[in-house]
Amino acid sequence: MLRAGVIGCGYWGPNLIRNFLENDATDVVQIADLSPESLHIMQKRYPALEITTAAEGLIANPALDMVVIATPVSMHFPLARMALEEGKHVFLEKPMTASSREALELVELAERKGLAIFVDHTFLFTGAVRKLKELVVSGELGDIQYVDSTRMNLGLYQHDVSVIWDIGPHDVSILNYLCAAEPEHVSSVAMSHLDTQYDIAYVLLRYGSLLAHLTLSWLAPVKVRQILIGGTKKMVVYDDLENIAKVKVYDCGAQVARTDVKEVRSMLVSYRRGDMYAPRLDNTEALKVEVDYIVKCLETGERDPVNGGRAGLAVVRAIEAAERSARAGGGFRGADTVGLAAEASHEARAGD
Amino acid sequence: MLRAGVIGCGYWGPNLIRNFLENDATDVVQIADLSPESLHIMQKRYPALEITTAAEGLIANPALDMVVIATPVSMHFPLARMALEEGKHVFLEKPMTASSREALELVELAERKGLAIFVDHTFLFTGAVRKLKELVVSGELGDIQYVDSTRMNLGLYQHDVSVIWDIGPHDVSILNYLCAAEPEHVSSVAMSHLDTQYDIAYVLLRYGSLLAHLTLSWLAPVKVRQILIGGTKKMVVYDDLENIAKVKVYDCGAQVARTDVKEVRSMLVSYRRGDMYAPRLDNTEALKVEVDYIVKCLETGERDPVNGGRAGLAVVRAIEAAERSARAGGGFRGADTVGLAAEASHEARAGD
Amino acid sequence: MLRAGVIGCGYWGPNLIRNFLENDATDVVQIADLSPESLHIMQKRYPALEITTAAEGLIANPALDMVVIATPVSMHFPLARMALEEGKHVFLEKPMTASSREALELVELAERKGLAIFVDHTFLFTGAVRKLKELVVSGELGDIQYVDSTRMNLGLYQHDVSVIWDIGPHDVSILNYLCAAEPEHVSSVAMSHLDTQYDIAYVLLRYGSLLAHLTLSWLAPVKVRQILIGGTKKMVVYDDLENIAKVKVYDCGAQVARTDVKEVRSMLVSYRRGDMYAPRLDNTEALKVEVDYIVKCLETGERDPVNGGRAGLAVVRAIEAAERSARAGGGFRGADTVGLAAEASHEARAGD
Amino acid sequence: MLRAGVIGCGYWGPNLIRNFLENDATDVVQIADLSPESLHIMQKRYPALEITTAAEGLIANPALDMVVIATPVSMHFPLARMALEEGKHVFLEKPMTASSREALELVELAERKGLAIFVDHTFLFTGAVRKLKELVVSGELGDIQYVDSTRMNLGLYQHDVSVIWDIGPHDVSILNYLCAAEPEHVSSVAMSHLDTQYDIAYVLLRYGSLLAHLTLSWLAPVKVRQILIGGTKKMVVYDDLENIAKVKVYDCGAQVARTDVKEVRSMLVSYRRGDMYAPRLDNTEALKVEVDYIVKCLETGERDPVNGGRAGLAVVRAIEAAERSARAGGGFRGADTVGLAAEASHEARAGD
Repeated sequence: MLRAGVIGCGYWGPNLIRNFLENDATDVVQIADLSPESLHIMQKRYPALEITTAAEGLIANPALDMVVIATPVSMHFPLARMALEEGKHVFLEKPMTASSREALELVELAERKGLAIFVDHTFLFTGAVRKLKELVVSGELGDIQYVDSTRMNLGLYQHDVSVIWDIGPHDVSILNYLCAAEPEHVSSVAMSHLDTQYDIAYVLLRYGSLLAHLTLSWLAPVKVRQILIGGTKKMVVYDDLENIAKVKVYDCGAQVARTDVKEVRSMLVSYRRGDMYAPRLDNTEALKVEVDYIVKCLETGERDPVNGGRAGLAVVRAIEAAERSARAGGGFRGADTVGLAAEASHEARAGD
Repeated sequence: MLRAGVIGCGYWGPNLIRNFLENDATDVVQIADLSPESLHIMQKRYPALEITTAAEGLIANPALDMVVIATPVSMHFPLARMALEEGKHVFLEKPMTASSREALELVELAERKGLAIFVDHTFLFTGAVRKLKELVVSGELGDIQYVDSTRMNLGLYQHDVSVIWDIGPHDVSILNYLCAAEPEHVSSVAMSHLDTQYDIAYVLLRYGSLLAHLTLSWLAPVKVRQILIGGTKKMVVYDDLENIAKVKVYDCGAQVARTDVKEVRSMLVSYRRGDMYAPRLDNTEALKVEVDYIVKCLETGERDPVNGGRAGLAVVRAIEAAERSARAGGGFRGADTVGLAAEASHEARAGD
Repeated sequence: MLRAGVIGCGYWGPNLIRNFLENDATDVVQIADLSPESLHIMQKRYPALEITTAAEGLIANPALDMVVIATPVSMHFPLARMALEEGKHVFLEKPMTASSREALELVELAERKGLAIFVDHTFLFTGAVRKLKELVVSGELGDIQYVDSTRMNLGLYQHDVSVIWDIGPHDVSILNYLCAAEPEHVSSVAMSHLDTQYDIAYVLLRYGSLLAHLTLSWLAPVKVRQILIGGTKKMVVYDDLENIAKVKVYDCGAQVARTDVKEVRSMLVSYRRGDMYAPRLDNTEALKVEVDYIVKCLETGERDPVNGGRAGLAVVRAIEAAERSARAGGGFRGADTVGLAAEASHEARAGD
Repeated sequence: MLRAGVIGCGYWGPNLIRNFLENDATDVVQIADLSPESLHIMQKRYPALEITTAAEGLIANPALDMVVIATPVSMHFPLARMALEEGKHVFLEKPMTASSREALELVELAERKGLAIFVDHTFLFTGAVRKLKELVVSGELGDIQYVDSTRMNLGLYQHDVSVIWDIGPHDVSILNYLCAAEPEHVSSVAMSHLDTQYDIAYVLLRYGSLLAHLTLSWLAPVKVRQILIGGTKKMVVYDDLENIAKVKVYDCGAQVARTDVKEVRSMLVSYRRGDMYAPRLDNTEALKVEVDYIVKCLETGERDPVNGGRAGLAVVRAIEAAERSARAGGGFRGADTVGLAAEASHEARAGD
């Protein structure tokens, strides 16, 4: 039985608490939050839980095997370090930390202590993303040529970070997982319309010969969560908001017959459109699958879980690079006409 | 009665022919195409049309007032120049020409000759885009903060140009029209998976404090034609593939209450979601509205039509800058791992 | 504080338990289920709950003010009668009972005892249906001319009743609420492809001059929950599966200019299509709104709650009539070619 | 070369004219319409066409092999009879005639004269319906258990008939084609909100053990054209308004394990949901496929074309039965409270 303490009962914490409570191999002993109100709501729901407003006390609780951290991002590092030093395994809400330096320090600390770190990249445990992985690994899609992801909503989830740090980790964790790699280059353009934090961002990531593009926004009137994957053999649309048929596999593509006759080149490109199919997906709650996976990793001593500390570090590294790229470009403020000038060496002034 | 000759009976030419035939103020006297097969199809449909495989003969035909050019892009300039020199008005399929130098030469030639040039930016004459213009001009949306356009399909329309030149003119003409301006800066990243022409491109355009982003693709398994416009007061989704309710206006947005207390900044951002409405749109065929507009412009001697030579030149200028920016960045070839390195000064190597 | 005991921890019971636990004015003291497995899951989640496999014991528990019954339909009546006799208020999952005779007996018993009965017609407490009620009451739609509802899914929710009894109560409760009436006539055609229970049914209900039509199915490959309401002034589409814009109000309709010239009648019908709008909806969880409403009804001594015993009885009466009508028509069995012959006096043999 | 004359240049006539003109095996010699305005529009488009306001003259034109009739329904019979008597083949807009008596007379006349009748059931020639036929014939769906079709729009197409006669023929022709049969029983309930013609109707058709249900409406705020087909092995959704993937095949269904133990019956029903796929469809214009088919039928002397006179008669017979059934039920008028009382013997008064 893995006995957990959960710090943070805001947006996502209650889901973590419920899943650790309902899993027969795990339990929640204690929860912590700065807000007595949030603790009250949880205690009304689960009267047996110990509650505290002091995270330090929870971390020191000898009854616990694991500390689950679902606080604002800035607190991830100090709380996780403290927990590791107390000899507890750690399960962190994404993004793992506010910087790659912090993430690396945690990974090294955990390795020294022989403890495990997990990062809650929940999407990796959905039936949809597991199916995407299968489609990539089996070769059914051919070589991946492009990935285009759009993740939009009205409103933010994490209060102390930009849209890149808030929702970018979903895409980067999925991409790293599908490519079994981390991006070699990252660049980004971002805008801030309300304050100093970016609220819309476009991010490019390169994995070998694959270029992935992300559209991230907190300022969209509609909710979109869609990833297109173009392979040399087939293409996929993964629309997370569909009820049925979240993953659609299209048997379509383009071929060039020959390229030697320059003048008639374009006539030789032919497009092919065949059937589409939507494979049946396992719709077990992703967080349940993830908690089962964590339990199994701890049992088997898995060294590099797909949601482990090393994987979390790789995501933070790419996100950090994207944020840095956006800042180097001067970003883009609503009322600021300087903006793009410094943005890119490859930029051309219209009309030059 | 405006008597037109039409050169090019491929994808779009038949629509031009039909609209000029059906309009009571216009007529089609002669058509030209290199393919006897295409001419045969048209003559079967409209037995009264004169046909020819020699565009020069058509241009010289004294019975014509206007030459309509719907050929591959590379032929736009020589044919249009010849027509203007023969004293004919010109109506060009988009993009106007293959370079801004050519477009400028045509504009100046037409002005010297007292002739008119029109460019077929059909979207400007749809009920949807005219409604968008109304929403912007009336101030209902507030200041425009961002525009995000996605235009995807499987397959190309124009055979001799990249995806930027092929479908980018739709977005740029709409943006220039809505902003009553041309972009000050343009940058782009593009990929080519099949041949030397780009088949996927991401383009950024800056209009004052507005940053617009385009996703353009010939390699998508699904067709998308969607533009999001974020204003300080309201936001719009224009989905051209909707049957009813192509334009949806969302009464939503975000405000920052105050910004002085740095530490709790994010708590002060509040999101507002109110009603949505979809205004009734005029669904007259856009090309019919455009032909009526052309007739009226010629009658009134309008100097700067929204689809005139100057407007067409501005679109070519932006598209040309986007293509140049993509090339300067090294573009991105499927089998080429150099790629992004040279792409942008603001790029950060993941993990630096 | 309203202290409840909940009988039945299957599909819907856990939602009832959670809402009664989380509401500050209510509490759950004890739960009962025949399945120790279901009780175990609930106790793992809420360790403070008393559990029992004996519903009678729970009903007799003097600590309870209300018994919440979420069992198979056939048990509603005996359990509710026992609870009323023990002096407890009752909250019943829909449909209220398996027959109108049973429902009436409960209503009369509750009235004699001065106790309250509530029936969980959850949909009445959604933001969408409350908005529909507003649109009808305010006169914005004009007179209601037709209602067409489609409720389809793959699979059943209630195991011991037909599709008419299982999902029909949703529509009938909404219709009765919107019309502030119960139907005067009900007829139905139904089919059974698997067993003796109907799995697809078409139901017609007449409210004064309004005819409502329901399509109910457990055998559809896709999930649909959509209601169309046609008014003389405006029309509404309520699509419960939409994320945003569940309720769309269309300013459209048809008029007849005059009807005196018989021969050209049809030329005088004109159709009008104006704007559409989607009002902002309250998206508080419906069950939370309902529990708040129940608490308030008990405080104020409301005699005829919208989800009260009388309302529940009216729903059962209409559903019962629909099932009886289907049976009188001989229903329709997959392997049975007799079928429709006896169905309706107005049926015409094709080719007569 | 099949030389046709076309009577009626209203909504559908121009499509017929265009297709007969563009087909290399057919031609249009002359067109007729009562409206000089409509003739003017056609002549502007196709200056080589002979025009006339006198249908009789066209029918007598010895240059013609076939008379195509796209007039209001009431004129179908007299014009077609005249054409057959003049020795011309006939191609009739659907529905074939205003009564089965008329249709039968035409069929018999044509057979006596050795001439062919075709009825324009265009949907039969779409890639979607041809694929449905394939799915049924191949046995992939198993036995068909139900068909549920919804065909809604705002506005009418045919001015002189009810919604049953106007859009019902689409569904009936598709059903007859898929079942290779005509319905044995037909019943219907219909409403008229504007005038004496029904504008909303629900129709039930029985084909052996299959019950099909149609929802037909001119008074819907949204356009719907969707057919669900439930087979014992697979289910299909055919949504004619989808751009791609109009036909989706769902590998899902329900089974009953055993039925002997009455009390636990429902526990034994299990639902199965597997993959979905959308087969590639031929998207040649349906009317082009139909004209090719007609030419081929005339060449081969096909006696019973899928869109022949006998097939058209079968559709009229079912539609006529539906209209008669609706009338026998007293129909349902907006302001009329009599309505349903007489409707059906199987109706039950709510609360009896």
